[in-house]
Amino acid sequence: MRSPVRLRAPIVLPCDAACSVLRDAVVDVSAQGRISYCGPVSAAPGSTAPVRELPGILLPGLVNTHAHSPMTVLRGMGGDLPLMRWLTEVIWPAEARLSPTDIETGMLLGAVEMLRGGITTSVEQYFQPEHLVRAIVAAGQRAVVASAIVDVPGWDWRRQLDEISARIDVDGLRSGPDERIEFGYGPHSAYTLPPEALTMVAEAARARGALVSIHVAESAAEDTKQRDAYGSVPRMLGELGCYGGRVLAAHAVHLSDVDIALFAENGVGVAHCPGSNAKLTSGIARVPELRAAGVAVGLGTDGPASNDDLDLWEEMRLSAMLARLSTMDPTVLGASDALLLATRGGAKALGRDDIGVLESDRWADLVHVDVDDPAFSAGLDVGDAHLLANLVWASGTRTVRDVWVAGEQVVADHEVTTVDRAKVQADAGAVTRRVLSAAG
Amino acid sequence: MRSPVRLRAPIVLPCDAACSVLRDAVVDVSAQGRISYCGPVSAAPGSTAPVRELPGILLPGLVNTHAHSPMTVLRGMGGDLPLMRWLTEVIWPAEARLSPTDIETGMLLGAVEMLRGGITTSVEQYFQPEHLVRAIVAAGQRAVVASAIVDVPGWDWRRQLDEISARIDVDGLRSGPDERIEFGYGPHSAYTLPPEALTMVAEAARARGALVSIHVAESAAEDTKQRDAYGSVPRMLGELGCYGGRVLAAHAVHLSDVDIALFAENGVGVAHCPGSNAKLTSGIARVPELRAAGVAVGLGTDGPASNDDLDLWEEMRLSAMLARLSTMDPTVLGASDALLLATRGGAKALGRDDIGVLESDRWADLVHVDVDDPAFSAGLDVGDAHLLANLVWASGTRTVRDVWVAGEQVVADHEVTTVDRAKVQADAGAVTRRVLSAAG
Repeated sequence: MRSPVRLRAPIVLPCDAACSVLRDAVVDVSAQGRISYCGPVSAAPGSTAPVRELPGILLPGLVNTHAHSPMTVLRGMGGDLPLMRWLTEVIWPAEARLSPTDIETGMLLGAVEMLRGGITTSVEQYFQPEHLVRAIVAAGQRAVVASAIVDVPGWDWRRQLDEISARIDVDGLRSGPDERIEFGYGPHSAYTLPPEALTMVAEAARARGALVSIHVAESAAEDTKQRDAYGSVPRMLGELGCYGGRVLAAHAVHLSDVDIALFAENGVGVAHCPGSNAKLTSGIARVPELRAAGVAVGLGTDGPASNDDLDLWEEMRLSAMLARLSTMDPTVLGASDALLLATRGGAKALGRDDIGVLESDRWADLVHVDVDDPAFSAGLDVGDAHLLANLVWASGTRTVRDVWVAGEQVVADHEVTTVDRAKVQADAGAVTRRVLSAAG
Repeated sequence: MRSPVRLRAPIVLPCDAACSVLRDAVVDVSAQGRISYCGPVSAAPGSTAPVRELPGILLPGLVNTHAHSPMTVLRGMGGDLPLMRWLTEVIWPAEARLSPTDIETGMLLGAVEMLRGGITTSVEQYFQPEHLVRAIVAAGQRAVVASAIVDVPGWDWRRQLDEISARIDVDGLRSGPDERIEFGYGPHSAYTLPPEALTMVAEAARARGALVSIHVAESAAEDTKQRDAYGSVPRMLGELGCYGGRVLAAHAVHLSDVDIALFAENGVGVAHCPGSNAKLTSGIARVPELRAAGVAVGLGTDGPASNDDLDLWEEMRLSAMLARLSTMDPTVLGASDALLLATRGGAKALGRDDIGVLESDRWADLVHVDVDDPAFSAGLDVGDAHLLANLVWASGTRTVRDVWVAGEQVVADHEVTTVDRAKVQADAGAVTRRVLSAAG
């Protein structure tokens, strides 16, 4: 329990479906860390809570729908090698050298970086869930820990599946302070797991209301066998009975119209990772078509070994730029659309109705943007579209001043309050150097 | 004259052709503001200058090869309207309302923003050169003022041309403190000026060794008449005798192999503006082919009404991402290539041998990158490719800590030292609001 507070700002962006811009508005935060009111001060209910005046723009914490954040400790390794050489010669051997505590260290740095950039929730598809949870809780972030399920020597997918189910059965789907941790299933992909694994994972997740986060159609060459057998991975997932629950397809670059219709029909969300897909030359996902079909689309940074930062503001701009380039229509994805992808859309893609939007009963996960920046020289008394353009196209992580998760302030004046950033960076650096020196 | 100083840093990136990474190195700055030595401390000449120890990465100031920076006062206007409506209904009427001092105010904000982001030189293609110069000198930036030459009612291209030539004849090609101002010619394009204007501008510039900055082949539809008559704008410029001097083609998106060969043969530089070209759906320039042909390519932000920030770090990443997507080759443009585009390549595209590289006799235009950031958690004792990947892919404007132009420190600890940023922002905001209110 914490003290209720009323946050008042000249601009509040609830990220409702219309991307409304509220002027002189407040967000009331309850003792439980939830929003009890968000709206104009003129219509606000009476309150005895202290009022905190914020000079900038208040919006929901950003939702990073696809990350492997512990890979902060591998960031920059392998430079600009071709993809398969980079994976086989650098990244996989390096990952094999990471201990559980190394993964915790990398996750902690990732959480610090994300919070300072305004990301309050991430979907973490990685190993060592207990250690991920410790880091996320220490940083004060919120996450869906979608434990990795892979089928490689030394790893038994059945055991991994059972461990996730057992954890949910014991601790519940959501746990930790303010329910900051949600457990989920992270089967790597249809081309790295046997079909029965996909069916069983989906069944276990559906029975528990849990999320399945899975890589789908990221690159053109990865799933030729599956396409030969089923037509496409989305069709394969359908035939294997994987739909019906909360399914999040990461990347989803190479989709046909039929695949998109299947996703829409089955409520599959998409984690769109434009930066990773561009840098690794995976391609450009069909976001305008996905949105037109009614598929919930969020944004993801992907892992910092491949993207290389955890900057969702850059992904917002990239989502708009690449959608425009791929359709040659400059109006196909505007500033407000990009902002909603990073907030409301991300929450919806995860099947979550408690984050991503500022409205009563959702968690008070909030970002305060500093408007003392050339991006906002026009001031805040400009039209809604003008203001949103300045926010999305011209500001960025540098303007994220304060961040709250469940009403707890975790970033104050651009710095994390929960952990010692210098120590976190130093610890991560020690891991990186040890991995590098072992690589010789 | 200022006091000589030796700047010592654990990493110095001279941005030579090999993109060398110097460890424990120094940059000696003379009393004239030029570099007298750049290299390892172990090989440095004896010096009595005071040593300033910098904890981060020292590199050349970035070169923004294409900007219309006074448009900071129009940033965000028109939101996400389609291109022609945005231009005709919003931007052109707004520009018509800008007074000479408004343009100076917008340029000053642009210069402040660029300096804080590590850009020490920009090519400014805009009106009111006297006012541009005042702002650039006040901010302490360096610029090529490529005065706009257009052929629209109320503007006489012959008079504009003669004014530029007269200014150069009186003041010299370079003027101002530390030669921070270079005058040049900014004919808008082949599709907005009569052919004789292009010929005369090129002749006048060539006679004076001055730069001609001109928009070429930005969008597919703009130059249909010229293509019908000459095959392409690059061929047209050749037939009109525009080559032989310093010519900088801005955008240069839609080029044939013949066009690229013409540019290479005639030493035409290219100002590549990937962000603007993506946002406005102009397309993706053929940077790998241009570089392979030996064309000097630099990066440009374009104007902040269209891009919308003056962030050359973002353009570095975009240049690499879009080159990769357009070729589907993840190795076609790496971190070191992107860094060289933003520094050495930019200088070369402008035909300047006094900026963009840290070597003796060039101006001491420098950027000091703060490595207290998650981007650099690996530390600086990593391999060269690793370090460059962290710098280009994971850091950004937020890490620009100190900036010098001609040895004068103009940004200290992330803030400009030359002008009052709050006042500059407020003045620019007043201009924006006046323009908006006149628009009704």
